[in-house]
Amino acid sequence: MSESVMHIDLNADLGESFGAWRMGADSAVIASITSANVACGYHAGDPAVMRATVRLARDAGVAVGAHPGLPDLIGFGRREIRVSPQDVEDLVLYQIGALAAVAAAEGVRLQHVKAHGALYNMAVRDRSLADAIARAIKAFDPALIMFGLPGSEMIQAGQREGLTVAAEGFADRAYEPDGSLTPRSRPGSVIHDVDEVVHRAVRMASEGRVTATDGSDIPLRVDTLCTHGDTPGAPEMTRRLRQGLETARWWPRRSDGCSMHLTSCCGRWCSRRSCRISGSTREPPASWVP
Amino acid sequence: MSESVMHIDLNADLGESFGAWRMGADSAVIASITSANVACGYHAGDPAVMRATVRLARDAGVAVGAHPGLPDLIGFGRREIRVSPQDVEDLVLYQIGALAAVAAAEGVRLQHVKAHGALYNMAVRDRSLADAIARAIKAFDPALIMFGLPGSEMIQAGQREGLTVAAEGFADRAYEPDGSLTPRSRPGSVIHDVDEVVHRAVRMASEGRVTATDGSDIPLRVDTLCTHGDTPGAPEMTRRLRQGLETARWWPRRSDGCSMHLTSCCGRWCSRRSCRISGSTREPPASWVP
Amino acid sequence: MSESVMHIDLNADLGESFGAWRMGADSAVIASITSANVACGYHAGDPAVMRATVRLARDAGVAVGAHPGLPDLIGFGRREIRVSPQDVEDLVLYQIGALAAVAAAEGVRLQHVKAHGALYNMAVRDRSLADAIARAIKAFDPALIMFGLPGSEMIQAGQREGLTVAAEGFADRAYEPDGSLTPRSRPGSVIHDVDEVVHRAVRMASEGRVTATDGSDIPLRVDTLCTHGDTPGAPEMTRRLRQGLETARWWPRRSDGCSMHLTSCCGRWCSRRSCRISGSTREPPASWVP
Amino acid sequence: MSESVMHIDLNADLGESFGAWRMGADSAVIASITSANVACGYHAGDPAVMRATVRLARDAGVAVGAHPGLPDLIGFGRREIRVSPQDVEDLVLYQIGALAAVAAAEGVRLQHVKAHGALYNMAVRDRSLADAIARAIKAFDPALIMFGLPGSEMIQAGQREGLTVAAEGFADRAYEPDGSLTPRSRPGSVIHDVDEVVHRAVRMASEGRVTATDGSDIPLRVDTLCTHGDTPGAPEMTRRLRQGLETARWWPRRSDGCSMHLTSCCGRWCSRRSCRISGSTREPPASWVP
Repeated sequence: MSESVMHIDLNADLGESFGAWRMGADSAVIASITSANVACGYHAGDPAVMRATVRLARDAGVAVGAHPGLPDLIGFGRREIRVSPQDVEDLVLYQIGALAAVAAAEGVRLQHVKAHGALYNMAVRDRSLADAIARAIKAFDPALIMFGLPGSEMIQAGQREGLTVAAEGFADRAYEPDGSLTPRSRPGSVIHDVDEVVHRAVRMASEGRVTATDGSDIPLRVDTLCTHGDTPGAPEMTRRLRQGLETARWWPRRSDGCSMHLTSCCGRWCSRRSCRISGSTREPPASWVP
Repeated sequence: MSESVMHIDLNADLGESFGAWRMGADSAVIASITSANVACGYHAGDPAVMRATVRLARDAGVAVGAHPGLPDLIGFGRREIRVSPQDVEDLVLYQIGALAAVAAAEGVRLQHVKAHGALYNMAVRDRSLADAIARAIKAFDPALIMFGLPGSEMIQAGQREGLTVAAEGFADRAYEPDGSLTPRSRPGSVIHDVDEVVHRAVRMASEGRVTATDGSDIPLRVDTLCTHGDTPGAPEMTRRLRQGLETARWWPRRSDGCSMHLTSCCGRWCSRRSCRISGSTREPPASWVP
Repeated sequence: MSESVMHIDLNADLGESFGAWRMGADSAVIASITSANVACGYHAGDPAVMRATVRLARDAGVAVGAHPGLPDLIGFGRREIRVSPQDVEDLVLYQIGALAAVAAAEGVRLQHVKAHGALYNMAVRDRSLADAIARAIKAFDPALIMFGLPGSEMIQAGQREGLTVAAEGFADRAYEPDGSLTPRSRPGSVIHDVDEVVHRAVRMASEGRVTATDGSDIPLRVDTLCTHGDTPGAPEMTRRLRQGLETARWWPRRSDGCSMHLTSCCGRWCSRRSCRISGSTREPPASWVP
Repeated sequence: MSESVMHIDLNADLGESFGAWRMGADSAVIASITSANVACGYHAGDPAVMRATVRLARDAGVAVGAHPGLPDLIGFGRREIRVSPQDVEDLVLYQIGALAAVAAAEGVRLQHVKAHGALYNMAVRDRSLADAIARAIKAFDPALIMFGLPGSEMIQAGQREGLTVAAEGFADRAYEPDGSLTPRSRPGSVIHDVDEVVHRAVRMASEGRVTATDGSDIPLRVDTLCTHGDTPGAPEMTRRLRQGLETARWWPRRSDGCSMHLTSCCGRWCSRRSCRISGSTREPPASWVP
């Protein structure tokens, strides 16, 4: 099996509960994905939820990433706020650091950063905000992978800062001819038919193409596929998605290149910098390995 | 000058502004202190304030520590909240991580952690909460120094976890015969006479003793003296305190052992583990040194 | 059917969703209750949730009351915070006012106020906090009914301020011999057997007695029974509770004296659709009737 | 002195402290103004600050109005958030109600509502948001006066709902030729010369005109003048502004028509509906008059 073409990452937004409020079917979805985007307290998540989510991901061999959002609990980070690039750099940094600390206490090192909700959407088209996110990631740890929409300002910003970037596809979302996502307010923007979603996912993975809303076939090369964890049928959809990819001989694998099964790895947990087994030049801090 | 007896740390709470609200005379106080306790967003401080405060401290050669508090902006973290030890461990971890990330982006590594307000007071007498704070510190970075009231549960908790602890004295606060602080609600709990404050500080430093409210002389060995930064006369009080200590041949120095004058140091930034110049055995991560 | 003895109010906590997070089975529970305690934004609820909940209650002929809590979203208002009586008076006033405005926009006047969670528990035993709640209620509208635990400081505080009070029983909770609730941390504190719950409810209503944890029979005269809306079996439990009471010839009715069926209204005061009667001596403000 | 032409209201934003943080020179500014816009907890203010501010205004005979803002403490309500009209209606209602309750406890009835910061700016140009504010005001109390920028969507929305509106002028702000405010980001947008500010205020009051940034003279009829309370020279500027108006024989008076000097009034407090002395047709609720 060639590493360069036959692996793909499956990511989902996890840890979106808050205090007494539950959201998502994290423990059902976790079995099918390879990377978890964990909310960091600004739009969802709290320190206890963050710790439980990191532990869930770690025990499943799923990579953990920060999912920083705008400071808007009532709006779940989905409402655009006119923030400055400096605001964004600071609030992303704050949230990455908070999650990284909680993760470290559970023996986990962060794999990636994916902006959440309105922050993601704003950074897709606003270069200065995308650059701010990339700067925050680089300042914290230049080895973190930056997730973003292919062809967007985010991917370019990550590349400008010298970060590893992962282009993200949404198998259950409609695309415009220019490669942007069809806004959720538009009918047909979300695809509910599971077979159709699986078909599109396999095509994105194997052909790097997707059919846009006008019927045209557009290029969409992706490194990671996002599957939604907070809808009623999420666990089933995610399971089917993984199954469909495996049938097409696409093996889900974390963006940092670890196998899900960890057998040839460091044992209990795993991160890009530590699990290259013999060739590892940079070990995680002793305190991170229980 | 013998290093073991003639140095003492001067710490103050900084970065207590929030959004559009200013608090404290940080830029005036910074010249006199050696360690800054920086609010982390739960009771005060926001990502922008945190970054500005770290920068201010770094440029003055002042060590930066996390000052985590209870989640209570309206109450400024001064109202006790019945939190569980696990709550405390998680919220301290979250806040240390958030500040550490902001600090890293400014080339600064944290020196210490000092609990704020009601969290400090609760941990002074509640072993399970003190242990929770110590566990959070150790999980994040066992090299962080834990500040606490001498003889309290905090100091013992830090020692149980194998942390370096720093016993803290309050020169402008009255003490009970048992070594606890006289509650602020009691008259005379805060000493406003500058000469008296300086006198008490010098005695704490040089004799390890202080006069309690009943006139008795009690032992109080301290490694760091706290001076308040948010009162009207704070800058003057702090300046006089430092002057008084220097006159008594006590040289203020960061808890991590760096000199205030960075000339013989690593240059731009400084931390216990890096600035022992030639003898350094553990370098900071490459990403932290711009 | 004698009005004076054969009616009882059934209340439940509603409107505990927040932003994107759902909680409770409000639309299922509403059919069985007569009074709704609506969260006001400090521990749960937001302006949109509050409006939807008021509308749901209004359309079901269910009375609306304010359910003010401590400012603690993460802790859902269940963690005690050391607040002063003045703090409590102000935050209760604020929350009552906020809900009253939302309710007025939906043509509804508030019937009652019931403190939530830790605030309720603190006021049960702390006279100064109970008085603060009663003062806030009286200052806003002396016609509001104050709910509280029978025999507690709350009931006495309401009476001292000249308010109408409603003693509240919890059919699914165990009682100590002194009439206080068995703390939730103790095993057996919550009764899950539906038949047992119904039996206790009917006894509270008809005999004014309940069996305490030591087997003794204690007096417990109640005006309103609380049923929990946020547990999995809540709708079924509430339905059975109502059914059991009706079978015992206890007719559930709002604390303000309206019948559920609104035909024989309007007694003291009432809401838009019920009080159009002829004999009403106190009409709601003209502005409240669209 | 003719009532119809020689009176003008002077308003300022007050009560912008929050918890332990102080902002503004409220007690110095209060002597010169006639209407206070009081923050309601979403962008500034808390229940205790609100109560203290209402008391300060009441004792000075200054009218109290709600100053609702976007839910953004860190951004002080100055960052635009993409909220829906329904969101705005609900959050304005919530905040008006909260302040009205606190005010009622101090014997004060609200005079007006003025949106704050980004909410004000958004409603100036967005009809659906302006309508939402007007609907919230009307639903709560159709007698409340709606403040807004002359010629803007806000004034028209208020008129569509049948509200009394008050056109507001900013004597210390530059105007564009189309009557809009010059954005703060533009140099010269704020006028600091006190004489110039007073001159512009008197012209707005007496001639209904102001000189725009291109030197042209544009119409600007105003009912109330806003003076800023949170800048260093605010008390002096406000005092001079009032003095200048009085010299020009413009007598500052509340928008609800009360004189500042309450001697011929109802005594302790005053509101439009009650203080027309003999001719009063609608008395305030008995509970509001201590």
